[in-house]
Amino acid sequence: MTQREVEIVEVSPRDGLQAEDVVLGTDAKVQLIGRAVAAGIRRVEVCSFVHAERVPQMADAEAVLAALPQVEGVTYVGLVLNRRGFERAADAGMDEINYVVIASDTFSQRNQGMSTDASLDSFEEIATMAASAGIRPTVTIGASFGCPYEGEVAIDRVVSVADRVAAAGAAEVSLADTIGVGVPSQVTERLGAVRSLLPAGVALRAHFHNTRNTGIANAYAALEAGVDALDASLGGIGGCPFAPNATGNIPTEDLVYMLERMGVATGVDLTALAESVPWVEQQLGKPVPGLVSKAGLFPAGA
Amino acid sequence: MTQREVEIVEVSPRDGLQAEDVVLGTDAKVQLIGRAVAAGIRRVEVCSFVHAERVPQMADAEAVLAALPQVEGVTYVGLVLNRRGFERAADAGMDEINYVVIASDTFSQRNQGMSTDASLDSFEEIATMAASAGIRPTVTIGASFGCPYEGEVAIDRVVSVADRVAAAGAAEVSLADTIGVGVPSQVTERLGAVRSLLPAGVALRAHFHNTRNTGIANAYAALEAGVDALDASLGGIGGCPFAPNATGNIPTEDLVYMLERMGVATGVDLTALAESVPWVEQQLGKPVPGLVSKAGLFPAGA
Repeated sequence: MTQREVEIVEVSPRDGLQAEDVVLGTDAKVQLIGRAVAAGIRRVEVCSFVHAERVPQMADAEAVLAALPQVEGVTYVGLVLNRRGFERAADAGMDEINYVVIASDTFSQRNQGMSTDASLDSFEEIATMAASAGIRPTVTIGASFGCPYEGEVAIDRVVSVADRVAAAGAAEVSLADTIGVGVPSQVTERLGAVRSLLPAGVALRAHFHNTRNTGIANAYAALEAGVDALDASLGGIGGCPFAPNATGNIPTEDLVYMLERMGVATGVDLTALAESVPWVEQQLGKPVPGLVSKAGLFPAGA
Repeated sequence: MTQREVEIVEVSPRDGLQAEDVVLGTDAKVQLIGRAVAAGIRRVEVCSFVHAERVPQMADAEAVLAALPQVEGVTYVGLVLNRRGFERAADAGMDEINYVVIASDTFSQRNQGMSTDASLDSFEEIATMAASAGIRPTVTIGASFGCPYEGEVAIDRVVSVADRVAAAGAAEVSLADTIGVGVPSQVTERLGAVRSLLPAGVALRAHFHNTRNTGIANAYAALEAGVDALDASLGGIGGCPFAPNATGNIPTEDLVYMLERMGVATGVDLTALAESVPWVEQQLGKPVPGLVSKAGLFPAGA
């Protein structure tokens, strides 16, 4: 039997920093990305191509990309919400874009300014452009486990969005628990349903927030459901400013601790990763939610 | 199909408070226990019968018990490490004791002052006394997922301890991740092995710490492995004083959130439980690690 492997996608430079009050300078972002890559991360969501007025933390997307060194085997990903964002990503020479479709209409309307259906239409257009430009298009389905405005999100909505983006040419589909409300039974059911409809060659990813302490349990359920990749954020940064102690993305170092101790290969050096957490705390001027860097590895020196 | 049920054992008055710097007065402990019971908890580990010099937080065990109201259907449990502790528990009129056997010799020697084998001999004696006194004896196997002195703990040691205590008359066997190092694959393997050897009528419980952010994932794995009861601590109190941000037991409110949203019945009123968290923070004079009370329930008003 070959060893189970899961790819870790580091999203702290985008989803993590986007929710923080402190705006990191371009140099600090490039350092953060460099630290993740040095620890063995091979895919990093480095920026999003959105209005600088709406998300000032991401205003320097092009400058970050220009400053990043090309590293063999490392992919930098840019988040895209619409055609304009895609064009910026293409102009900046991105190899991979991550397009977001939100599964609930109200949230999609408020965040993207269009319905879920309109957002799917937009992806179809972008996927065609991406194909001709040689850019790998992946899709994150936001609010796959619950919506802040509509409450529960029916599994059928998530499945039909996944079906449509896969048909349109998504190379990978990710289910995101955008507001951190999901539980493992939902993960098993929803990832299982999407896994079984995805054509061979289309990868499955998941994205969890630890807002209600279920993020790592959800990651374990996703592993059991056959996920290929998991998003995570160094230190678990990205907590919601309205809930001071609520945490952001699942902490990369805590996820890697669990996976590696379970015998799942991530290719990440946990010691190197954990050593970067104090640096992140220094940059943000506050402690981060991740626990392994405080508690230490086990067995000692592992 | 009947609905899956899991019993929640509230351990904040014992394991939670034992690790805190602030020593709560007897009245505050009685209030804490009363709040848990009012929220629907039906089993509470209320004290331990250990040397007052070693654990000053537990010095008022008898006074706490004397002040607790008898509530129909509610069981108060006292922790016991040796024969002397059992005699105190019996004198205090406890209905249930939880005896601790540590699976690794070094840790057992340092914590209990005897080897694992000697501790098992002691339990055999206590189980006989408990049977004649009409006291229900349960056993927690400490360091079931790793030892702070020896590192990895072989599954065979855990299984053989479980086998011996079940044969001696334990009504319930609990696997404890005393130092918070366990991961779900261990839980699946170890609880599965113990479940399959326990005679019918002997219950299976598990006890997790969230020290490395795997506690709730481990609880989910334990649920999948057929656990009957899970220990948890309101607010997740009980963090190790040597790791300022490391958390203690898994937070009861976060565990109940996950279970109830998964359709697993706990009998606990999550709103009432979450409302007690600010009270706990006030008593301890600091924020607690639990997240649901800060982030809010989902769907809103659930």
